[in-house]
Amino acid sequence: MRIIVPFAPIVSVVMLLSTAGAAVAADQAEQPKYTPDGGLHLPTDYREWTYLTTGFDMSYSANADTAHHMFDNVFVNPAAYRAFVQTGTWPDGTMLVLEVRGASSRGSINRAGHYQEGAPMGLEVHVRDGARFPGKWAFFTFDDGGPQGKLIPQSADCYSCHAAHAAVDTTFVQFYPTLLPIARGKGTLARSYVAQDAAQAGTR
Amino acid sequence: MRIIVPFAPIVSVVMLLSTAGAAVAADQAEQPKYTPDGGLHLPTDYREWTYLTTGFDMSYSANADTAHHMFDNVFVNPAAYRAFVQTGTWPDGTMLVLEVRGASSRGSINRAGHYQEGAPMGLEVHVRDGARFPGKWAFFTFDDGGPQGKLIPQSADCYSCHAAHAAVDTTFVQFYPTLLPIARGKGTLARSYVAQDAAQAGTR
Repeated sequence: MRIIVPFAPIVSVVMLLSTAGAAVAADQAEQPKYTPDGGLHLPTDYREWTYLTTGFDMSYSANADTAHHMFDNVFVNPAAYRAFVQTGTWPDGTMLVLEVRGASSRGSINRAGHYQEGAPMGLEVHVRDGARFPGKWAFFTFDDGGPQGKLIPQSADCYSCHAAHAAVDTTFVQFYPTLLPIARGKGTLARSYVAQDAAQAGTR
Repeated sequence: MRIIVPFAPIVSVVMLLSTAGAAVAADQAEQPKYTPDGGLHLPTDYREWTYLTTGFDMSYSANADTAHHMFDNVFVNPAAYRAFVQTGTWPDGTMLVLEVRGASSRGSINRAGHYQEGAPMGLEVHVRDGARFPGKWAFFTFDDGGPQGKLIPQSADCYSCHAAHAAVDTTFVQFYPTLLPIARGKGTLARSYVAQDAAQAGTR
């Protein structure tokens, strides 16, 4: 019997390194690893990467189904995070992981609101690799929990929506509370986002 | 005008180390640092620690105020996380950081649900230091955003509630979806929690 535990936390080899060159090795370990058929291997230690934000029942539609509550957690590889803090934008090799988890209520001592429970219900990775992808970025979906994700075609809506509305380089930094002020300070916000934000502010 | 940015992300020195002993240095950098009057210095790089979970509008009261929606994010120092993965419980030196952020809606392309926005609205740290605290753990609150937290007296309700209801060693591991299965597998769940969980399951 083959036992597959695709989402189990794995102790990062990064923190166990104590020899010269540890930082270099760490950065190499974070590079996206593609499958022969153009997919992406799941970065299994993403839960030890840098956390960016969590949303609750987020939807781009006002008529979203809210019968099943969901959280979405976003992580990024640490080297890309450090680069963003320095520059206000993402380097090649950036991997943003979106993890969806079910929301439970009234368990243990919790009486109101929601908490996260159970295994991930969905997983997507957004990869920046300028030499490989048109538009520099690509989305991969891990519908079955991994360990190999499928490339979402560049014609899918997610690409055009991210290009049109994202705050920084097709990424939704407007929802990452620690990074938005950095992008604003370094002047790396997309012109389209700045214009949309100003227009929305005028209607509030 | 004085500009205070108490919670700005700071690049962790841990990841920049590339000499022998990096792991040891990292563990030492994670030790709790107390103030002369018994408070705790804010671990300023906690946003680069290991993420555990996020709740939305969580409350122990069924009559909680939901006029203002809130997220709470939980982080732990990486050395303590690695120890938990190995043993199912927390070592001395564990610091769990609870960060509260405001929940916004209908900004940018978001039309339903909530996302995190703005600076932290509250911060608490739960520290395990068996030689220093009765009951081995203590809570510190950073009401004003830091950088020094005040010790919450051991007579406060949070201590007795955590002792009575927590899944592992007075911590609410029942709300940490990646750690609860580890504690269950290693048999480190508190007897009181197991009994309460079984009683609740019987009423569902």
